[in-house]
Amino acid sequence: MAKIAVMGAGSWGTTFAKVLADNPANQVMLWARRDDIADEINTDNRNGDYLPGIALPKTLAASTDVAEVLSGATQVYLSVPSQSLRDNLEEWGSLLPKDAIVVSLMKGVEKDTGLRMSEVIEKVAGVDPSRICVVSGPNLSLEIAAEEPTASVASSVSEETRTAVAEAASNEYFTTFTNKDVIGTEFGGILKNLIAVAIGIVNGVGYGQNTKASIMTRGLAEVTRFAVAYGAKEKTMVGLAGLGDLIATSESSLSRNHKAGEMLGKGYTLREVQRRMAQTAEGLSSVAPILQLAKTKGISMPIVEQVQLVLDGKMNPRDIAPHLTHGADGPIGE
Amino acid sequence: MAKIAVMGAGSWGTTFAKVLADNPANQVMLWARRDDIADEINTDNRNGDYLPGIALPKTLAASTDVAEVLSGATQVYLSVPSQSLRDNLEEWGSLLPKDAIVVSLMKGVEKDTGLRMSEVIEKVAGVDPSRICVVSGPNLSLEIAAEEPTASVASSVSEETRTAVAEAASNEYFTTFTNKDVIGTEFGGILKNLIAVAIGIVNGVGYGQNTKASIMTRGLAEVTRFAVAYGAKEKTMVGLAGLGDLIATSESSLSRNHKAGEMLGKGYTLREVQRRMAQTAEGLSSVAPILQLAKTKGISMPIVEQVQLVLDGKMNPRDIAPHLTHGADGPIGE
Repeated sequence: MAKIAVMGAGSWGTTFAKVLADNPANQVMLWARRDDIADEINTDNRNGDYLPGIALPKTLAASTDVAEVLSGATQVYLSVPSQSLRDNLEEWGSLLPKDAIVVSLMKGVEKDTGLRMSEVIEKVAGVDPSRICVVSGPNLSLEIAAEEPTASVASSVSEETRTAVAEAASNEYFTTFTNKDVIGTEFGGILKNLIAVAIGIVNGVGYGQNTKASIMTRGLAEVTRFAVAYGAKEKTMVGLAGLGDLIATSESSLSRNHKAGEMLGKGYTLREVQRRMAQTAEGLSSVAPILQLAKTKGISMPIVEQVQLVLDGKMNPRDIAPHLTHGADGPIGE
Repeated sequence: MAKIAVMGAGSWGTTFAKVLADNPANQVMLWARRDDIADEINTDNRNGDYLPGIALPKTLAASTDVAEVLSGATQVYLSVPSQSLRDNLEEWGSLLPKDAIVVSLMKGVEKDTGLRMSEVIEKVAGVDPSRICVVSGPNLSLEIAAEEPTASVASSVSEETRTAVAEAASNEYFTTFTNKDVIGTEFGGILKNLIAVAIGIVNGVGYGQNTKASIMTRGLAEVTRFAVAYGAKEKTMVGLAGLGDLIATSESSLSRNHKAGEMLGKGYTLREVQRRMAQTAEGLSSVAPILQLAKTKGISMPIVEQVQLVLDGKMNPRDIAPHLTHGADGPIGE
């Protein structure tokens, strides 16, 4: 039995711990920041705050003790808020087992540095890229927790690492494929949140499928241009970790980014949206750093730019229509 | 004023006639097969059977007299059932003005020959390809009839032709872009119907966004493989006429193909579905000829093949899960 640690007991961390624990080859321990969550998981096999109504595997243990959770783990999955990862890694320091594979389940960029999560892991925790993996795909946690058949992607520069993660993270209802394009896989997960906010906005305004499908299509072209400029492969962006995740997130009322956009589309200000949402919508905090990175490379991102204008209160959500000002072809072409 | 003829007063033909008539540069006449429909359009500016609740432009005239409608038209838009196009063209014969641009609004292949609609127009009516155009995109008719901002694509091998169509078919709420990939644009419109049936099936079974997003992503890879083998450009398939139309159709409860799939997913047989649907679901009749064309070129189409098995009653809809048996990357790669 391989011992696996999952750090972070929010809805995605808990869901992924369930995915791993539902593979009988794994022994999984989940780190929770809050005592009451760890207790509830250990006693009742539930995490009512983040996964209401879901029965967790009896074999899934939880603890607030970082040393206990990390000790002896061969794979460590990270699911903390993007903006706290640096502090968490610094705090955990040498508790992170030296030879463990470190897997990012997170989808964001660090605000001040513009670094992707795998880069933060490499830089702050000194993990060699051959032991770093990112998992991303069309993966709404509540559907996976309900055991709907789902596919995902594990990406690492090392074949051994991505294969080990894909094996651990597969079970009867969850299939993990592999690819070696870490940059594309990671940017797919980050950038789709921005398009999902845009789709949420037009949904809030009241437009239908023609508008949304056009914005998703032009959005894919836009995020592909961006990611390819930063070293991603085009075919990753058009695959499950790019397009697949974009569609799942954009169309789902379960997505926080979609929901945040929808409230903006209905006329709420950014401040009101933030106040009303219990959990972070990663997309909102990624807009500024992504536009900064786009500027550095001279990439045009008309959809994300219009989202920024709405966030700043400088554009009426009703006027978002980037699909009427651009070309017919995708994903990179105009 | 350019005189424009639209042949076929179903929901899409009528909607497109409205799009054209809402551009003040056009004088539009619509051919209806049924007297009562032509009368209703001329008297009440409505087509209650196909576009309930929509007020048509007062300038839009209708007639059941083919000669009257076609006479003097510089552009002729065709919107008849795919399987009747050949008979219609033979019947109209020399009434079709010699120098007119002929535009296909149809999305299907001819069952016995496997020909696309533009090929039928060329072969049966003897129209030179430089005067043939196809229009396709994420275009649900009821949303366009409601004047939601929508984008579409006009494709012709002739720049003059596609530009003339794009200009005629644009107005305040409808923007038509151009490309020169007729094959890709046309196959995009045909093939997305097959994926929409698959999505309808999983929707009927009760699966959520993860499954649907994965099937759309793998579906795009599958239809792109097919279309590229037949001469389409990959970037068309990932653009508005490919991916855009696929998303719009797959996600919409307004789509007949989606609806047909949904009924199959709920356990109705093909015969029952056909009996209960007032209008044709083009996707159902395209499955067999497309699989035949795929076989000819040795192309694997796992999703369409599974749809065929469901149509034949040889697979339980609950077992459709092509997204769990294929790779991570798109649109051509595995």
